[in-house]
Amino acid sequence: MQTDGRSDPRQPSGDRSELIDRAIGGQRRALARLISRVEANDAAGRELAELVYPRTGRAHRIGVTGPPGAGKSTLIARLIAAYRELGRRVGVVAVDPSSPMTGGATLGDRIRLMEFHADPDVFVRSMASRGHRGGLAATTASVAHVLDAAGFDPILVETLGVGQDEVDVGRLAHTVVVLQVPGLGDAVQTLKAGLLEIADVLVVNKADQPGADRLVRDLASMRSLSQDESDAGWRPPIVRTTAATGDGIGDLIRRIEEHRAHLAASGQLTERERAMAAAEVANLIRTEVEARLAGPTADATWTAVVAEVAGRTRSPASAAELLLATVGSTLNE
Amino acid sequence: MQTDGRSDPRQPSGDRSELIDRAIGGQRRALARLISRVEANDAAGRELAELVYPRTGRAHRIGVTGPPGAGKSTLIARLIAAYRELGRRVGVVAVDPSSPMTGGATLGDRIRLMEFHADPDVFVRSMASRGHRGGLAATTASVAHVLDAAGFDPILVETLGVGQDEVDVGRLAHTVVVLQVPGLGDAVQTLKAGLLEIADVLVVNKADQPGADRLVRDLASMRSLSQDESDAGWRPPIVRTTAATGDGIGDLIRRIEEHRAHLAASGQLTERERAMAAAEVANLIRTEVEARLAGPTADATWTAVVAEVAGRTRSPASAAELLLATVGSTLNE
Repeated sequence: MQTDGRSDPRQPSGDRSELIDRAIGGQRRALARLISRVEANDAAGRELAELVYPRTGRAHRIGVTGPPGAGKSTLIARLIAAYRELGRRVGVVAVDPSSPMTGGATLGDRIRLMEFHADPDVFVRSMASRGHRGGLAATTASVAHVLDAAGFDPILVETLGVGQDEVDVGRLAHTVVVLQVPGLGDAVQTLKAGLLEIADVLVVNKADQPGADRLVRDLASMRSLSQDESDAGWRPPIVRTTAATGDGIGDLIRRIEEHRAHLAASGQLTERERAMAAAEVANLIRTEVEARLAGPTADATWTAVVAEVAGRTRSPASAAELLLATVGSTLNE
Repeated sequence: MQTDGRSDPRQPSGDRSELIDRAIGGQRRALARLISRVEANDAAGRELAELVYPRTGRAHRIGVTGPPGAGKSTLIARLIAAYRELGRRVGVVAVDPSSPMTGGATLGDRIRLMEFHADPDVFVRSMASRGHRGGLAATTASVAHVLDAAGFDPILVETLGVGQDEVDVGRLAHTVVVLQVPGLGDAVQTLKAGLLEIADVLVVNKADQPGADRLVRDLASMRSLSQDESDAGWRPPIVRTTAATGDGIGDLIRRIEEHRAHLAASGQLTERERAMAAAEVANLIRTEVEARLAGPTADATWTAVVAEVAGRTRSPASAAELLLATVGSTLNE
């Protein structure tokens, strides 16, 4: 939308500080421009991200993830409204391509979100999917940092909980809310990609539909199997919601806030924030490695070594060992 | 199945050569053991893979990929039978968790595959999914190498064409067959993960069902949009099959063999084999990077740098740049 911000990436650094000041100071257009810049992830965007980062660290980040059709968008619209009633400024980063922010949702969802369009204390940003693995998670984190610096708290991050990328995004949150709904098939199946392990709050949405009781029971027994030692003292609650009517949203917010309080009171907040930082750094490394792997044909060493592999004079494993060292060292070329 | 092979990974290297000789010489139990070892990917397995690799390079590798429910398993059973009629020895590596080899298919598929159980010129291996990204593709390639060395040709690699890992597996084939079926929703949607770009032969399976004509037309127009310059001279044909009855299988095999002949006649075979080698090496690098990222907490530098990020005294990007260099250099610890 704010394409003007992308047209001149090489503006003087004084203008960059000014853009950040205006964005953080509450100017909505400046904020949209700043996010577009950071999202573009070019040299200027990365410099802006560097300037923003020291000003972050206040917001509570809430990941909302689940399969397509679980009702994430409707739930998020309800969460925005409920947090606004509590006087909170709410930021949203939507990564799910079926999200209403990216045009894939029902009319009802879109109308619900349009309510917030004029509210200066709600900012919703949708993300385009990036080419490289890890890239989506890396950019999502950068955008969340901008919203954090701009004083939004909480920041909701909506992701499609199906692939590894989405699990990565999940790890970037203080509180991970995992949605399941009855009728989408075996809960064990949809959760097996590691989502249960990262869940802090489990939600059975569409709880008025057949199969909800069984899903709650299944999740309870899976939860007891996968209880993580490191999270001693917190057992992920299972909350029933019906996002379409708003039923259970108050309960969900109470559980999220309980988790936030638990992190602070138990001393686990520091540990969690280090895990979030580690996940973010890992995603950036992954993105950089993928970028290197995507364009290796220009590299003479790479080309020669690969030709040896194709000619059977060198094994793939030996080639990988040789070339892995260059992935890091040639970064600053 | 051949668990005896996994119980003693540290057998003398003479025994390793002997195992390879017996496996390649046609001893089925030895072959199963060798594959189990290579698949385990421990030190002994990697050494075996090193010894096997120089003996590979004869087989034509055919990737068969498509979404769940596209009928890949049934199609592969038909392809095995048809290649056997041509006197070819057929190897199969099945990566799809819904494959009959891993227990997820219909009774009909399982019966169809059991026909080949006693045939010494058919070898079917199912793969368990690996934890790390890229790991599945890396191990799949290793197993395919063993079958190649053992004289199977073609080697069919069945994958679930939904995620990045599966696209990676697709890149490991001389001929990539991409299945689509009517009624699974928008073709553009299911193909957007890069599968069309890697397709050498497009198959509309269940071609007797409603919507098949439209799917053929959609694929044809998508194909014309994504025509790759580097593959000049080969336009991926669209083949209609009904795997359940066997209709179209002969046509599919003709198209696959035409593609094989095209690669050889056009001089693109060398280029393709380099691309396959590059993809395999990239997957191994990716796997190693993921292994390093999965266990970074033990690393003192990593821990210190991540703490700085969490404390906002260092940006994630600066941390990633610093730590990326160590990913390669600490490989041989």
